Amino acid sequence: MLPLYVIKIGGNVIDNSEALHRFLETFTKLKGHKILVHGGGKVATKLAEDLGIESQLVDGRRITDIETLRVVTMVYGGLISKNITAQLQRYGTNAIGLTGADGNFIKGKKRPVKTIDYGYVGDLDDNSVNAKGISDLLNAGFTPVFAALSHDGEGQLLNTNADTIASALAVGLSSLYQTTLIYCFEKKGVLQDIDDPESLVRDINPERYDELKAAGIIHSGMLPKLDNAFKAIDMGVQAVIIGHADDLRQTNEGGTFGTRLSK
Amino acid sequence: MLPLYVIKIGGNVIDNSEALHRFLETFTKLKGHKILVHGGGKVATKLAEDLGIESQLVDGRRITDIETLRVVTMVYGGLISKNITAQLQRYGTNAIGLTGADGNFIKGKKRPVKTIDYGYVGDLDDNSVNAKGISDLLNAGFTPVFAALSHDGEGQLLNTNADTIASALAVGLSSLYQTTLIYCFEKKGVLQDIDDPESLVRDINPERYDELKAAGIIHSGMLPKLDNAFKAIDMGVQAVIIGHADDLRQTNEGGTFGTRLSK
Repeated sequence: MLPLYVIKIGGNVIDNSEALHRFLETFTKLKGHKILVHGGGKVATKLAEDLGIESQLVDGRRITDIETLRVVTMVYGGLISKNITAQLQRYGTNAIGLTGADGNFIKGKKRPVKTIDYGYVGDLDDNSVNAKGISDLLNAGFTPVFAALSHDGEGQLLNTNADTIASALAVGLSSLYQTTLIYCFEKKGVLQDIDDPESLVRDINPERYDELKAAGIIHSGMLPKLDNAFKAIDMGVQAVIIGHADDLRQTNEGGTFGTRLSK
Repeated sequence: MLPLYVIKIGGNVIDNSEALHRFLETFTKLKGHKILVHGGGKVATKLAEDLGIESQLVDGRRITDIETLRVVTMVYGGLISKNITAQLQRYGTNAIGLTGADGNFIKGKKRPVKTIDYGYVGDLDDNSVNAKGISDLLNAGFTPVFAALSHDGEGQLLNTNADTIASALAVGLSSLYQTTLIYCFEKKGVLQDIDDPESLVRDINPERYDELKAAGIIHSGMLPKLDNAFKAIDMGVQAVIIGHADDLRQTNEGGTFGTRLSK
């Protein structure tokens, strides 16, 4: 199977024009098939504010009424998607800016209302990703850039967490490619000592993960991220890397970067 | 050569949800390869207004400063593109919402400043369309939906007239497909008597065109549209049809509709 990288960039890259350019240049140099996933929460919040629409977040998830869905469709699916695409073309990556509606690539289900009505928020399941369609696009020489939007197949776009989209893509495509899922965020990776960027934990397998949790080194916000990463690995993803966008270039130089999670 | 339809829908279809749904259903039934092209001027003007950005139009062309470019990228490339795509998926068309930056499909040149600085407005020339790339997408089973945006290949998106994009696509793809260019607008087609919708002129060739101009039947706003249509035909497009979106269904029923321009 051919290797495939699914790389998610966070807001710290998107919101910093220089960091974004550095990243896109490095991304272009990365050999083989690759997919980029992005959100754009801060830009969306700013646009909503400018339009007098109140942004409501619960546990970091945006309550998405119809006005907010318009905003995220414009920001994620238009502004950020198409600017990243234009920049990637400049660097020589044959990018195509997509949402889950395009090519019917990612189908979501509107989150059921329990205590909170999240509105037009989509959840993904094991059958969400159209691996065949995405593979057709990759084989035709295109590099997909996915915004954090899925659709329900009935004409409705759904705001969908970018980490979730990246993970679903990596899992869904692992039947056709040897997939590595990379989360680029603002730290070097999982740190043994949060105040010491040199204390990077380079490799974590499930046993080591249990130890790190027991020792209280991995806690709070990192827990769901790593739980989901190990879930993706259980479902066929070869490895998950969590690290700084600027360090991705080490992959091009034959090295490794960040924290690598694997079996 | 296989037939290809390049169909441009105007604001009267985009701004009317019922008309849009009727159109997208008909578009889905249209057999063979097809490409949809759209703008979204009214929605963009409204968003600009809501954001306190003044919309300046000269001869129907939008002066596009950097703020206005953001607006049209969000509206054409995001909101309208992705909603049309989601709706088309619902009807069964495997649509992908694109700009000219995606796949490097349409390269524009920033309009030179003469008496008026149009800002980030792109003009197209004979080499603007990447026919091979678009054909790869068509052959992979996708139906491209193009927003009225091109890019300069250096990372800059450019606001580009939707009629011009449709025409450039039809001409550019005429080397690979037997292309028909269809402009859907709010009238039945070219009318002999503007007050009588039944007075449709069904066929116009260059000689008839000269007669209709001499008789004053075709004048003002219709002249550049038809001049461009005949230019497209000279450059390889088999026929150009100008008609009402609701009448497109007659094509599916084996009939013709609107005014058909050909050699």
